[in-house]
Amino acid sequence: MSEQKKLRVGVIGAGQLARMMTVPAINLGLDFKVLAEAEGASASLATTVVGDYTQLEVVKKFAKTVDVITFDHEHVPLEILQALEAKGVSVQPPSKALAFAQNKLHMRQRLSALNLPMPDWAAVKTAEAIDEFLAAHEGVAILKTPIGGYDGKGVRVIRSGADASDWLEAKALASFGGELLIEEKVEFVREVAQLSARNPSGEFKAWPLVQTTQSNGVCAEVLAPAPGATAPMLELAVAIAAHVSEGLGVTGVLAVEMFQTLDGRLLINELAMRPHNSGHFSIEGSVTSQFEQHLRAVLDLPLGDTSMTAPHAIMVNLLGVDDKNTFIEHYDKAMAAHPSVKIHTYGKGARTGRKMGHVTAVGQNETAIASDVWQAVGVLLKG
Amino acid sequence: MSEQKKLRVGVIGAGQLARMMTVPAINLGLDFKVLAEAEGASASLATTVVGDYTQLEVVKKFAKTVDVITFDHEHVPLEILQALEAKGVSVQPPSKALAFAQNKLHMRQRLSALNLPMPDWAAVKTAEAIDEFLAAHEGVAILKTPIGGYDGKGVRVIRSGADASDWLEAKALASFGGELLIEEKVEFVREVAQLSARNPSGEFKAWPLVQTTQSNGVCAEVLAPAPGATAPMLELAVAIAAHVSEGLGVTGVLAVEMFQTLDGRLLINELAMRPHNSGHFSIEGSVTSQFEQHLRAVLDLPLGDTSMTAPHAIMVNLLGVDDKNTFIEHYDKAMAAHPSVKIHTYGKGARTGRKMGHVTAVGQNETAIASDVWQAVGVLLKG
Repeated sequence: MSEQKKLRVGVIGAGQLARMMTVPAINLGLDFKVLAEAEGASASLATTVVGDYTQLEVVKKFAKTVDVITFDHEHVPLEILQALEAKGVSVQPPSKALAFAQNKLHMRQRLSALNLPMPDWAAVKTAEAIDEFLAAHEGVAILKTPIGGYDGKGVRVIRSGADASDWLEAKALASFGGELLIEEKVEFVREVAQLSARNPSGEFKAWPLVQTTQSNGVCAEVLAPAPGATAPMLELAVAIAAHVSEGLGVTGVLAVEMFQTLDGRLLINELAMRPHNSGHFSIEGSVTSQFEQHLRAVLDLPLGDTSMTAPHAIMVNLLGVDDKNTFIEHYDKAMAAHPSVKIHTYGKGARTGRKMGHVTAVGQNETAIASDVWQAVGVLLKG
Repeated sequence: MSEQKKLRVGVIGAGQLARMMTVPAINLGLDFKVLAEAEGASASLATTVVGDYTQLEVVKKFAKTVDVITFDHEHVPLEILQALEAKGVSVQPPSKALAFAQNKLHMRQRLSALNLPMPDWAAVKTAEAIDEFLAAHEGVAILKTPIGGYDGKGVRVIRSGADASDWLEAKALASFGGELLIEEKVEFVREVAQLSARNPSGEFKAWPLVQTTQSNGVCAEVLAPAPGATAPMLELAVAIAAHVSEGLGVTGVLAVEMFQTLDGRLLINELAMRPHNSGHFSIEGSVTSQFEQHLRAVLDLPLGDTSMTAPHAIMVNLLGVDDKNTFIEHYDKAMAAHPSVKIHTYGKGARTGRKMGHVTAVGQNETAIASDVWQAVGVLLKG
C-alpha cells in the first residue's frame, strides 16, 4: 500500500487558475484540495481550507493532507516553502525556482548568467543611476519593482530619474527589495508567449508559440499558434523555454513572455511559473490543456500531448465592464448567435477591468474564429 | 434583479454522470449542486446535500436551493417529481417524460402510438402468453422487467414460458408493475446510439450516430461517428431521435439505443433521458460535450454546436477487473506510452465489472486512435 501513488494535489490560492485546475483533477480522478484566502473565491468548489498562506502553521497543516503542493499564484513567502521542503514536502515548482518568479531582479540576474536573450537591464537605486541608464537608451526605459508587480502593476515607462521619485523613497525602495529594475524599452513588432511544462524527472513539453495582445497591461487576446511564425522562430522559442525551465529548475507549467523585435529576435520579458492566461486556449485548443499538464507535471506523471486540436485557436479575455455585468445575464443571446464558441466564467464578482472569464474558439479558419469570438465577447460585454 | 437568470442547477444522484456535469458547470460559472445518497460518491466534489431522494421533504428542500432539478439517474419516484412540479419547480426532463424512462412497457406503448420503428413486443403476465409470443417469433425472445432494469439487469433471453417462472410469481410480477415486456430478438448487424438534446423552448440538436459494442450487457466501446453509416441512415437516426424527444416531451440529453438490422432498418431498443455512456466521446470529440449540452438544455439556454472536433473519436470503458485496481496506479505507464489519449476515472471503489472510468482518443485515423486507446486500456487494466 505504501507504494501506491495517492495523487493528492494541494493548491495554494483559489483564483481562476485553481478553478480551472479543478477540471482535469475531476477527469483524472485526483484528490484535489485548495487553500483559499477567503470563502467564495473563484475555486471555492475545491476549497478545503480557508486560511492565510503567509502563516506557516496554516500551510503546514494543509500540506499534511496532500502529496504535492503547487500554486495558483507566486506570492507564498519563500521561507514558508523552504520550511515545507525541509520537512520533506514536495513543493512544485520548488522554492529555488519560485525565488526567481518572486523577484524580477534576481530573475534578470539568473537569465543573464544563462546567456538568455532579453532587453538591456540594470539594478538601480538612485535617480542618478536611472538618468545614466536613460542616457544610454535614448531617454526612455521601463522601470519595474522587483517584488509585487502583477498585471501591469509595478511597471512604468520613465523618461527621467524624477519620474521614479516615489519608488526611490527609502521606505518604498526597501519594500521592493532595496533596488529597482530598469529595462530597455524594446521596439517590438508584437508580444509572444511560449508555454511549456516540465516534471521533476526532467521531461519537458512545449505548446506552439502564441501571440498575445495586451490592453492597459492586461492580456486581452491570444492567437495560437502565433500567426506567421516561421519554423526557426518556433524552434527558438521552445529552446528558450527549455533553457529557462532547466536553468531555473522550474517544474509545472512555465510561461515565457517575450518581445519579438523588428529584426526577428525574441527577448524575454516576464516569466510565470504556473498556468498562465496565454495558455487558456489550450483547454479546447490542445490535446492536453495547460491545467491538466500542470497537474501531471507537479505529480511527476508523464506529460501529455501538446498538439493543437485544430489549426488555429483564439482566446479573448472577458474583462469586467462595470460592477454589475457578470456576463451570465447575456448567455442567452451570446449562445444563440455563437453556438461554437466556448464561454468560461470564473465565478468572480463584477469589477471594471477585472479578469472575469474568457471565450475561446478553435478551427481551420483564423479569421472566421476570430470574428466569432470577438462578436460573442461583444454580446457578453454589452448584451 | 428578479429578471436576472441565476443559473443554479440541482442534480439528483451523485454518480459519474453528475461528476462529469461538474466540469461544464465550472466552465460556465453555474451554481451547481448535487443531492447524493451517501458521502464519498463519484460526484462528491459538488455534493451539497446527502439524503434519500425517495423522501419528498429531502427533495423539496434541495429544490428550493436551485432553479432547475435534473438527474444523474432515472429512479426518482414520479410522485415526488409531480409534487415538485405542482409547486412550480422546473424539473427537466419533466415527470411526464421520465414516466416513459421508468417503465419500459409504457415506453413501448407510447413509441408504438408514435409509429416509431422498434422490435415486435407485447405485454405478458402468464407463461402461456409468453409461449404464444415465442411461437410467433421463432422460439426465442427477450423478456424485460418494465421497472428496475439497468446495465443488463432485468433483461433475459428466453425460449419458453418456464424460463420466466421466477418473474411470473405474483409478488415478483407485482414489483415489476403487474406485467412483463416481451420483445422480438432482433437479428442485428450492430448496435448504434443516437444522442441528442432538446431544451424546454423546443430547440433540438443531435450528435452524429455512434456505434456501441456491449460486453455482458454493459457498454464497452463507442465509435463516433458509426463507421460506414450512410447519409440516409444518419438522417434517419436523427429523425427518430427528434420524433422521440418531441413525442415524449423529453428535455436535456436523450440517448436512443437502436439495433441496425441486416436490411438496414433502425429499431429502437432503449431510451435514456440523461447524459449516457454512448456520449462520453463528446467530452473531447465534440465542440459541445453532452454534459455541457445537458446543462444548457435544462436551463433552457441555447444549445451548443455538436460538430465533431476531429473526423473520428473512440471511447472505451474502464470496467473494474478486481476489487483493488483503481487504474490510477497504472497512470505512469499508460501516460508515458500513450500521451494523446484522455483518461477519465470516476473516483469509485474497485469492483469487478464496475464502470470506473473511460479512455477517449480523437483523430484523423480511426485505426490509429483505436489502437492507441485499446493499448492504453490494456495497460490501465493489467499494469
